[in-house]
Amino acid sequence: MRFSAQVFVTLKPTVNDPQGNAVLGGLHALGFESVETVRVGKYLTLTLDAIGESAAKEQVDSMCERLLANTVIESYEVEIESA
Amino acid sequence: MRFSAQVFVTLKPTVNDPQGNAVLGGLHALGFESVETVRVGKYLTLTLDAIGESAAKEQVDSMCERLLANTVIESYEVEIESA
Repeated sequence: MRFSAQVFVTLKPTVNDPQGNAVLGGLHALGFESVETVRVGKYLTLTLDAIGESAAKEQVDSMCERLLANTVIESYEVEIESA
Repeated sequence: MRFSAQVFVTLKPTVNDPQGNAVLGGLHALGFESVETVRVGKYLTLTLDAIGESAAKEQVDSMCERLLANTVIESYEVEIESA
């Protein structure tokens, strides 16, 4: 069966986010003064073959641990749906 | 009122995604042969003040048009919830 996976990789809350701070500064400079915080992460969409939804979830979790996220400073969330 | 916004910025489907292709190659090299496609996008989380949810949505849409997304090659989605 084919599944599509959405992966959200975000910096852990205690980790400084210079990219987010730069975006925040840019938004303020454009007049969007109401913005208080910005955090920037990654959003990956994958399609994969697996025997079932839980097998797909397990595979994508493993991909996150090994390549997609740096788990020292980042956390990830995975959502699977059949495609 | 304070709102939190999730912004998903993705390359349009017809646009080539070299970063996604590199990740796909990396996953195959690690033995994840079942992965067929990978697309890489951005995931931003913002907190902002606005008078209501629709005003917040309007502001964040405007931020996407002006700074967060390059609408020539990228599309974006915004989700607002009260924080």
